[in-house]
Amino acid sequence: MSTADRPKQFIALAHPTHTLLQQAVLRGAALDQAGPVTIVASDRHAGVIAEQLDQIGCHAGAIILEPVGRNTAPAIAAAALAAPSSETLLLVMPSDQVIADADAFGAAVARARPLAEQGWLVTFGISPDRPETGYGYIQAGDQLGDGVHRVARFVEKPDQARAEAMLVSGDHVWNAGIFLFRADAMLAALTEHAPEVLAAAHAAFDAAARDDAQVMLDPEAFAAAPSISIDYAVMERAERVAVVPVTMGWSDLGSWDALHDFGPTDGKANVHHGDIIAIDTRNCLIRSDGMRVAAIGVEDLIVVATGETVLILPRGRSQEVRQLVEAAKKRR
Amino acid sequence: MSTADRPKQFIALAHPTHTLLQQAVLRGAALDQAGPVTIVASDRHAGVIAEQLDQIGCHAGAIILEPVGRNTAPAIAAAALAAPSSETLLLVMPSDQVIADADAFGAAVARARPLAEQGWLVTFGISPDRPETGYGYIQAGDQLGDGVHRVARFVEKPDQARAEAMLVSGDHVWNAGIFLFRADAMLAALTEHAPEVLAAAHAAFDAAARDDAQVMLDPEAFAAAPSISIDYAVMERAERVAVVPVTMGWSDLGSWDALHDFGPTDGKANVHHGDIIAIDTRNCLIRSDGMRVAAIGVEDLIVVATGETVLILPRGRSQEVRQLVEAAKKRR
Repeated sequence: MSTADRPKQFIALAHPTHTLLQQAVLRGAALDQAGPVTIVASDRHAGVIAEQLDQIGCHAGAIILEPVGRNTAPAIAAAALAAPSSETLLLVMPSDQVIADADAFGAAVARARPLAEQGWLVTFGISPDRPETGYGYIQAGDQLGDGVHRVARFVEKPDQARAEAMLVSGDHVWNAGIFLFRADAMLAALTEHAPEVLAAAHAAFDAAARDDAQVMLDPEAFAAAPSISIDYAVMERAERVAVVPVTMGWSDLGSWDALHDFGPTDGKANVHHGDIIAIDTRNCLIRSDGMRVAAIGVEDLIVVATGETVLILPRGRSQEVRQLVEAAKKRR
Repeated sequence: MSTADRPKQFIALAHPTHTLLQQAVLRGAALDQAGPVTIVASDRHAGVIAEQLDQIGCHAGAIILEPVGRNTAPAIAAAALAAPSSETLLLVMPSDQVIADADAFGAAVARARPLAEQGWLVTFGISPDRPETGYGYIQAGDQLGDGVHRVARFVEKPDQARAEAMLVSGDHVWNAGIFLFRADAMLAALTEHAPEVLAAAHAAFDAAARDDAQVMLDPEAFAAAPSISIDYAVMERAERVAVVPVTMGWSDLGSWDALHDFGPTDGKANVHHGDIIAIDTRNCLIRSDGMRVAAIGVEDLIVVATGETVLILPRGRSQEVRQLVEAAKKRR
């Protein structure tokens, strides 16, 4: 359902009306002592972001627009540079994820805050419920405080055997790309471990075109930044990096099965969105962005209707959608 | 999938490319000593009929167009009047049915021919395989020849108990509206049992506007005909009426389950029609008249995509489609 022009964070995937971006903004705004939101995004999405913030009555502190994508390190560098003060705590959240248990999330942030205030770079690690090979892992080391550990090591996306071993170990969590840190701590870490990233972000930020909250990074300066993730550039190298393991109904909605698990259900465990008529239907995900889908007597089915295509498959097999996409390409 | 403008006989429901009408025409043409086809139809379908006959290279002997519908008795009367000679045998077949076993059908027609040539009105009765309450039944009486019986009685659509009793009896068959008779025998029977029908058909036929094979019945004259079925008007009243019981893979395709049973299958018992991609899919009926339907890993499912609607239900429940249609009406 997502496209380059409208990636999934701009779609209402896990809420009847709010998009994932709107859910993320509201999730942040609901936290204790929350300040104004800063958004870092591609400049091609400036319009949809403004529209979606407007819909939920949110006035962003800054909307930093990237003329080109350079992965997360330059984006986070720019956000740190835009912070109101050097001591501001920045909570970094990817907008294409869902967190079902807001209370658990809030509690995890509260646990992370004391260390972040002391200058630690804190990551939030998702307690795994399956041997997932699609995520990086973080091994939790010595305890630093209540539910907060020093990071022992970062682990790249594992093979199946290693994923299973880490699941069993009990001290490995998924790296979900959620962080809490002081702006000055991140800038200091960038200075030490990724000076080229910081220099390019700095130049692009200083030469940015500004219009209200909107900060259009200078294209030439930003393009000079290395394209590198914050994990590689900083987290895996810095000294004082902590992890807060948390179970909070997290998902990156990487499959339709996940959409079913996290979507708003009716009384029969169905997750429907769009013009759907369902009779005697259970445990189904049925989504349509236009056409009407009418179902009777079906169970455990995923049905997604977009544009001029309908996809139908059983729950639990949504990873096989790729096969359909390949077959469809051959057909054209 | 069918509409008033395009009822099911004009749709390819049981063959990869041929419509039910085309199948019926070709079925008749393949019989021993077949003469040219006569078609009786609503005048609103003149265009689609001409087009579909052209597609299969068929030149009809007559295409009789009804300005209004008056049920089957006036239609058959007009066809009898249009017959090349009074001794011509007319094989009457509804065009919205499928007959899977052409050999069994041909053999049944061959068994019926001697009696029809002697002036009997012969019906073909489908040996029932279930206690169907949606059809009329014919009870076979004394044997008249090889596999041909005098009709003992016609039975209206029964309730469930009577249908089950008739199924058990072994001497009741479904009335499928398929007949064989001499033109003059039918005209004589109409004269005796339904003179108003014959008079109106005669007047409409004589005053018809003709253009090549096309016979446009006179609207005013034809409208004067009583609206009555050939069963009521003639078959249930005439003296010399015979029935040939036959098992020939007959269906009126009254449900999607029937479509699955009679459609052309792939190697996995699927019946697909339209822009369908199916991977690891078994025992499904998937039809689309436009949009692409892609399925993976599903079984025993009926999926029908028409216009801007997709319907999904398990096989065996297609009678419940009405519920969906009702729900859809409320939604609008």
